[in-house]
Amino acid sequence: MAFCKVYIATSIDGYIATKDHGLGWLEQLDNPDGADFGFTDHMASIDALVMGRGTFDAVSDFRPWPYDVPVIVASTSLQSVPDDLEAGVQILSGSPAELVEQCELQGLNRLYIDGGRLVTAFLDAGLIDEMTISRIPVLLGGGIPLFGEMTDAVWWDHVATEAFAGGLVQSTYRPTPTSSG
Amino acid sequence: MAFCKVYIATSIDGYIATKDHGLGWLEQLDNPDGADFGFTDHMASIDALVMGRGTFDAVSDFRPWPYDVPVIVASTSLQSVPDDLEAGVQILSGSPAELVEQCELQGLNRLYIDGGRLVTAFLDAGLIDEMTISRIPVLLGGGIPLFGEMTDAVWWDHVATEAFAGGLVQSTYRPTPTSSG
Repeated sequence: MAFCKVYIATSIDGYIATKDHGLGWLEQLDNPDGADFGFTDHMASIDALVMGRGTFDAVSDFRPWPYDVPVIVASTSLQSVPDDLEAGVQILSGSPAELVEQCELQGLNRLYIDGGRLVTAFLDAGLIDEMTISRIPVLLGGGIPLFGEMTDAVWWDHVATEAFAGGLVQSTYRPTPTSSG
Repeated sequence: MAFCKVYIATSIDGYIATKDHGLGWLEQLDNPDGADFGFTDHMASIDALVMGRGTFDAVSDFRPWPYDVPVIVASTSLQSVPDDLEAGVQILSGSPAELVEQCELQGLNRLYIDGGRLVTAFLDAGLIDEMTISRIPVLLGGGIPLFGEMTDAVWWDHVATEAFAGGLVQSTYRPTPTSSG
């Protein structure tokens, strides 16, 4: 049974990137303690990173390639990835449930779900088991939103919040158990 | 010189009300300690509450009237308020700077700015001196957003964050001083 996690940074106003998919503002964060905000532990806890096409386009030029886990790009239109990424990146398509199933068939059970549209689709399908949201102390004023429209209101249990020097506030949530669930 | 504060609750996905301006979800928050989340202290710290038309429409039927401070409704279209509110509610119009000036002329210097569109307009005008955002642990999936589009990206200093039993996470920010400012 897969366990799907979100670990994502957003501006106070809820954007994960500028309108042109820019991530440079993340590097402007004051980080006096050199914290990694739990990223190393998070990456060690997952089997694969599943990202949407928009996120892949935003990071596909990063060299050295920042991920040492298998990367799944969820896309119905992407045909191929750069040659040097072929060993570590595969393209899959399908609904969130179908993506999870295809990962499980490969033995990839602990999945890091990344990117606004993909996260929203997984949330809407009730498939996110934990989300860690890091609020960067900036109002971007516009950009690519973390959360899109979803069908139902869903309550979450707050697990923990940590405020770091420099102003990043990181909160972790898990779905509130329901009597029907 | 006026001091303008935001003190507002939002869902994890950034909505301050459901699409029909509903606030009932706020009452579903688990609050085992009976916390008031600093609201009494906040209200004691302000001279007047300035709200947009949308917020006024959402609260104008509340009885007993919940505010014991002067309320300013920022609106160019609202003609009058219910008779029983006339003593405590006035209608003003103008830009954020003009609204602040009209308040100052009445000796109202510490202003609580409320409502998504008004907060966004004040932020865009650089007129917010402090904002306290309470994140309710729910994804509403849609609704009235807290933050609208703004012209410039603006960094803020994180002042404090407190996580309450029940999962509300409250963060306070103040504008980062700039060399030009």
